[in-house]
Amino acid sequence: MSSLYPPSLTALIEEFEKLPGIGHKSAVRLAFHIMGVSDEKARRFADAVLNAKATVRLCETCQSLTDVSPCALCSDPRRDRSCICVVESPKDLVAMEKTREYKGLYHVLHGAISPMDGVGAEDLKIKELLARLTPEVEEVIMATNPTVEGEATAMYIARLIRPLGVKVTRIAHGIPVGGDIEFADEMTLARAMEGRREI
Amino acid sequence: MSSLYPPSLTALIEEFEKLPGIGHKSAVRLAFHIMGVSDEKARRFADAVLNAKATVRLCETCQSLTDVSPCALCSDPRRDRSCICVVESPKDLVAMEKTREYKGLYHVLHGAISPMDGVGAEDLKIKELLARLTPEVEEVIMATNPTVEGEATAMYIARLIRPLGVKVTRIAHGIPVGGDIEFADEMTLARAMEGRREI
Repeated sequence: MSSLYPPSLTALIEEFEKLPGIGHKSAVRLAFHIMGVSDEKARRFADAVLNAKATVRLCETCQSLTDVSPCALCSDPRRDRSCICVVESPKDLVAMEKTREYKGLYHVLHGAISPMDGVGAEDLKIKELLARLTPEVEEVIMATNPTVEGEATAMYIARLIRPLGVKVTRIAHGIPVGGDIEFADEMTLARAMEGRREI
Repeated sequence: MSSLYPPSLTALIEEFEKLPGIGHKSAVRLAFHIMGVSDEKARRFADAVLNAKATVRLCETCQSLTDVSPCALCSDPRRDRSCICVVESPKDLVAMEKTREYKGLYHVLHGAISPMDGVGAEDLKIKELLARLTPEVEEVIMATNPTVEGEATAMYIARLIRPLGVKVTRIAHGIPVGGDIEFADEMTLARAMEGRREI
């Protein structure tokens, strides 16, 4: 019965409800927040939506989100062009960059193979990855998530790339730093044992 | 380090972060959702914000949100004009209407007196309420929240209105229907005892 609100407010509530993780009560709260801010702030919010939509696209090289293509990272001469780190999403790329450890390039797949969700290899940016494998590229690091889908995707891509003579590696799984062995799940512990290194 | 995203996407993330109850991770999730929907859907969302801001205003009579003033409820000839139910927010009005029990008019204060938050009586729509107290009005029902602020506001307004010869009532507090006496707090139980009625 949000129809007790004016139609344009009801419409705004419904638009907020379409966002992921926003239920009816949150949508009402957000719409009322918008009602309470200045016209200028509401316009700035609406403009941010339209502006981001209008300017952000995929980098023609790494397929990450960018406003210039190729993106700043792909055109940065300081990056190591012999190594491509493959991630599922631009968020994973940002998480990797935050470590400041990796100096190579990236490739964003935009998902992982998941027959359950109807996502096949052809829905991911795999063709675009293969097109980047010039002789310059020596290693492809599969940094997909340690989920069933992420593992399957890593395996699938590894099988495509290995015959081309490019080294394919997978990021290590194990006990998170600061984590507790007692509370680690069996899969993680097994992977941690498997990936042990001499100290 | 969301500066790793394109500036317009970072701006959108920051706009989402300004919304109540939306932290950084949620803001990133929402901004990525917008990136993933069609241009048309994003435009519909932005338009809903601007349209609601442009058309929704306060009803000149009851001060609730409306796109026509006086609002549909205030101009409905079937409503009982002898009774005004005073609520803190338009959301409370909607909650009341959902009961389908109340047939009178409403008045929205837009808050409650709260010295802690710097909200005084002059910040609420109290003058507008007093202006409505024509001889036609027989009863004013204080339906502010059962909080310290809501109670104080109800008492304050009751003291203003009573001398005008208008009956002022307060909604009953007690055990919620379906609630459990065992788990009711002492204040609620005390109010439930105080407000007991013969059966």
